[in-house]
Amino acid sequence: MKLLERFNRQDVRALSKIISAIEDHQNGIQKVLGELYPQAGAAIRIGITGPPGAGKSTLVNGLTHQLLKNQKKVGILAVDPTSPFTGGALLGDRVRMHEFPTTGEVYFRSMATRGARGGLSAATDNAAVALGAFGYDTVLIETVGVGQIEIDIIDACDVVVVVLVPESGDSVQTMKAGLMEIGDIFVVNKADRPGSDKMVAELRYAVRNWKRADQSWDTPVIATEATHDKNLDKLYEAINRYIGHVQGSARFESHRREQIAKKVMAVLQGRFKKEFFDHFNAEVGLDTVVNDIMTGKTNPYRAGEELYHKFEKQKTPSVQP
Amino acid sequence: MKLLERFNRQDVRALSKIISAIEDHQNGIQKVLGELYPQAGAAIRIGITGPPGAGKSTLVNGLTHQLLKNQKKVGILAVDPTSPFTGGALLGDRVRMHEFPTTGEVYFRSMATRGARGGLSAATDNAAVALGAFGYDTVLIETVGVGQIEIDIIDACDVVVVVLVPESGDSVQTMKAGLMEIGDIFVVNKADRPGSDKMVAELRYAVRNWKRADQSWDTPVIATEATHDKNLDKLYEAINRYIGHVQGSARFESHRREQIAKKVMAVLQGRFKKEFFDHFNAEVGLDTVVNDIMTGKTNPYRAGEELYHKFEKQKTPSVQP
Repeated sequence: MKLLERFNRQDVRALSKIISAIEDHQNGIQKVLGELYPQAGAAIRIGITGPPGAGKSTLVNGLTHQLLKNQKKVGILAVDPTSPFTGGALLGDRVRMHEFPTTGEVYFRSMATRGARGGLSAATDNAAVALGAFGYDTVLIETVGVGQIEIDIIDACDVVVVVLVPESGDSVQTMKAGLMEIGDIFVVNKADRPGSDKMVAELRYAVRNWKRADQSWDTPVIATEATHDKNLDKLYEAINRYIGHVQGSARFESHRREQIAKKVMAVLQGRFKKEFFDHFNAEVGLDTVVNDIMTGKTNPYRAGEELYHKFEKQKTPSVQP
Repeated sequence: MKLLERFNRQDVRALSKIISAIEDHQNGIQKVLGELYPQAGAAIRIGITGPPGAGKSTLVNGLTHQLLKNQKKVGILAVDPTSPFTGGALLGDRVRMHEFPTTGEVYFRSMATRGARGGLSAATDNAAVALGAFGYDTVLIETVGVGQIEIDIIDACDVVVVVLVPESGDSVQTMKAGLMEIGDIFVVNKADRPGSDKMVAELRYAVRNWKRADQSWDTPVIATEATHDKNLDKLYEAINRYIGHVQGSARFESHRREQIAKKVMAVLQGRFKKEFFDHFNAEVGLDTVVNDIMTGKTNPYRAGEELYHKFEKQKTPSVQP
């Protein structure tokens, strides 16, 4: 396979092509990913999440400089489930890459939903596999908010940094938003703004009283000013400390096992869906069904069930005993 | 069916039981929904969305009072994809219901992911069908943020109100978050805070320059103070005006058709997944597969594909010609 050959020769354009194929769910990409998978295992995944406006991009860029200083190769995936609506991903990519060396130590990519919705968390996971296989030993995954898709993505990270700003409200709001549960490290960014000290104190109190599954980790709360590169070294140190804390532990192992099981199920489901839709689009006139529902002849629940049985029947030829 | 009988006799507990069955994807619920569907058509769905901390709950409660004043019966669905992590839904429900009459004009319910993830947008849609069938002529659907699930839910509404606060950042941030595209009406809540006038002006400029699919609607931007009941009458008036604008139009009709088609597909997919997982859990030892992947004997992509073929083969008995 020529693309894979170019990939193995460290051709960045081949990497980009493979990630595009992943996003588009192209035929044959699963086979390519199967080839890449054994090479991808060692890469560490750092998840960075938080509400819009928390300064995540700046923080990710700053953290990348810290990683570069420590001889790491960094792949960045910026995930935005809403970007099919905005379409500005490509432009943003160029702007954000601008401040990094073009010698290959950093790879930046926005992940957006292409075409039909869905599959964004699987695509991001697969893109991280590709980055790891290419030789990026650290993969930063930046997500907006904590919707269901983001949580799936964040679940697949080895360490999760939650970024907040003083303006984003008090600790109660944070707990309500479900961020308390997913953070291994908390960052209060834009710490020069009013209310920062109070927020750090509140968060420290909250994490101390929060019953983490892993009680042996003392969740750090770090005040940063990403725009002035302040305390990003402390963040880097905390991330390293957490990785050291979990790596080799039973928890790390069981987490990886869970992730693998999820991945198998995701591949299986994706395959099923594909088969199903190919068939569906060819055989069934959805328009007729909609007409029947609008005129009250049937309802979506009955129609769906009937279509399912129709499909099952066609898939299973009757057996002559 | 006894539950359905009680539902038809306006027993609110039967309604709650049906919504719980919807959330749990209980067997037989599709049949119940098929019965309810023809009665649900006329209810108007109002979607209320925006970032956490924008004051959506207070606004929804205030809007509910406006609707009650106008002799509407209001069903409220508060959707929070992150709540499996917080588990505070039930308590919140009681707190929020507290300010409404208990005579049945208002029904409030939080929608959360129960058990396995996924299906939240379908469950919310089905709960809205149940509310409509029960006699709630207005269904308010409140969602946090604009993740993929929230967008699916909001897509199924007849009118969408986007709620922002001065603190949530400038118009650019709003456009980045994909909110520009989905709002039929914009609200700047907590308008007593600094920066409110500027934000209203910026949003007005932005909506004027935004190329809406429906150019004949002049998107209103309304400054409110939900906690002081200020301008919620204006919001109510704007919602009514929008409904009047679209109802009976070709756009309204085609949107409803799209929604029906999506619903059929969702039922079909759900049915497929169920069949698939029943089979999968019984037949395949996922643990063995994970072991094989961890020891490098296979990879998730190949394993998923192989399991798919195994399943297909068993489903399709060989034909004797």
